[in-house]
Amino acid sequence: MRPLLSCGTWRAVLARAWRPRPSADYLGVLDAQGYARNPPVGACELQGELDRFGGISVRLARLEALDRLDATAFKKGLQVAVQQWQSEGRTAVWLHIPILQSRFIAPAASLGFRFHHAELDSSTLTLWLGEGPSRLPGYASHQVGVAGAVFDEGTRKILVVQDRNKLKNMWKFPGGLSEPGEDIGDTAVREVFEETGIKSEFRSLLSIRQQHTNPGAFGKSDMYIICRLKPYSFTINFCQHECLRCEWMDLNDLAKTENTTPITSRVARLLLYGYREGFDKIDLTVEELPAVHTGLFYKLYHKELPENYKTMTGID
Amino acid sequence: MRPLLSCGTWRAVLARAWRPRPSADYLGVLDAQGYARNPPVGACELQGELDRFGGISVRLARLEALDRLDATAFKKGLQVAVQQWQSEGRTAVWLHIPILQSRFIAPAASLGFRFHHAELDSSTLTLWLGEGPSRLPGYASHQVGVAGAVFDEGTRKILVVQDRNKLKNMWKFPGGLSEPGEDIGDTAVREVFEETGIKSEFRSLLSIRQQHTNPGAFGKSDMYIICRLKPYSFTINFCQHECLRCEWMDLNDLAKTENTTPITSRVARLLLYGYREGFDKIDLTVEELPAVHTGLFYKLYHKELPENYKTMTGID
Repeated sequence: MRPLLSCGTWRAVLARAWRPRPSADYLGVLDAQGYARNPPVGACELQGELDRFGGISVRLARLEALDRLDATAFKKGLQVAVQQWQSEGRTAVWLHIPILQSRFIAPAASLGFRFHHAELDSSTLTLWLGEGPSRLPGYASHQVGVAGAVFDEGTRKILVVQDRNKLKNMWKFPGGLSEPGEDIGDTAVREVFEETGIKSEFRSLLSIRQQHTNPGAFGKSDMYIICRLKPYSFTINFCQHECLRCEWMDLNDLAKTENTTPITSRVARLLLYGYREGFDKIDLTVEELPAVHTGLFYKLYHKELPENYKTMTGID
Repeated sequence: MRPLLSCGTWRAVLARAWRPRPSADYLGVLDAQGYARNPPVGACELQGELDRFGGISVRLARLEALDRLDATAFKKGLQVAVQQWQSEGRTAVWLHIPILQSRFIAPAASLGFRFHHAELDSSTLTLWLGEGPSRLPGYASHQVGVAGAVFDEGTRKILVVQDRNKLKNMWKFPGGLSEPGEDIGDTAVREVFEETGIKSEFRSLLSIRQQHTNPGAFGKSDMYIICRLKPYSFTINFCQHECLRCEWMDLNDLAKTENTTPITSRVARLLLYGYREGFDKIDLTVEELPAVHTGLFYKLYHKELPENYKTMTGID
């Protein structure tokens, strides 16, 4: 991103909308809270940045004199600025507002801005200026839940729980929502341990479920992933808050019982197939690969690929 | 959810914090905007509902007299109410605020509330009242992108594009972000058509990538899924805004070229393996199953399971 908005533009806009206090002295001294009581001459009150899609990004936290600006003056200033950006062919405005400055949200909304997202101590509003419907990217649309199917090949037992807070108590795999930034397999291992006291390690990804307009996801979509885990402890010590029961159950029994959810039943049958015919029939294995531009790494899950295909050795 | 908070509680709280206008007449007449100028005697200004986890949910949109309440009075009222809820052992407060009433956000923030999420014309703030760190569920944490690997078995050609807005032009599969409520396969088919003009249908899910702290996802996580699609049109008419080039390329060439991303290369090799050894080796197939409580349906993806295992017929 390169800075684009000439500071002069915004300073001019705000100057017109500004209503100085009677005691304003324009010396740029700090008040008791450490804020500049008046903008020093030539200071830039607002930074607008142009993104590579032709949008303008405005961060109110960088507008030092904001504390003395009232909502009406802000609205006037924003209105003039938006008109100018529109005349310059900008496609959109992104407005980043610290939570304690939220008095500027309603004035922006009255000019057509809407929430794009908000989290903790900041919100982001957007206004589409381009032609036709907005082409701005949406915010995160899915929550991700992960369950662990902890299967002990030696005894053919699988770890199952019954939730405490359900109307009907059905056997299912322990699991829960991913923490921010947590890998799928790590969520499975963590949730299994928190709910049951069983230690385990990730083996493979078995299934992915996508569900929409989920009440438990605040109306957003839900991705629910079941992993195959291998236990390395066996003594159950389950969480009394979350679970009513927790057992090691014979996999055959889980595959046949009616006292379970459709997805648990299906995955139990998938596991039984894998147990008898080889887990390579059902597993998605994981590998870490480098992202192209960011220098980050990611986890990629797919069916195991023979080594000669991975390297294209001897493949013509 | 059952209503819990006695309306009396909140009315009392607000009455103490209330600062009536000089002209207040308490007749409950409507002003020009259709709002009650004064609360009718005995009216309930605020609805608080108890959820099944012991939290209180407050919807400011239902507080009719809100328009006349200033931020300071709201803060005092909220403070008293929070103290009362805490003394009653409530675990959390959820505050739902219409965007045009956002002047109440900063006062709530000064009492410790933080944004849980916001979208379009509403924000939700939370305050954890329970012991220890917050156990409130997070909001959606992932954006979901889907690409389509459109493969024509008859010619062994695969559809690839080069993005217009990248520093380095590498061959990749057409794709993009899921729309709200859109199924994975539908996103793949839609994005392929929008970018390339090729019509196709969903065959299987091939790979899932999870990546965190993604700049393109506003710092959230990203799930990127590649589907195998079967084309039923072949004349390319690509989107000049998004793509620089679009071609039907021999799958062998894509599997060998260096001018591509690591994930495209990997999936090309996976497809080559499937093409030669059978797509059942690489495909996750999809099925629709019923959710237990909600009456909704969901899509479940996993390796194809033989029919006798699905029904447990003849499996002992």
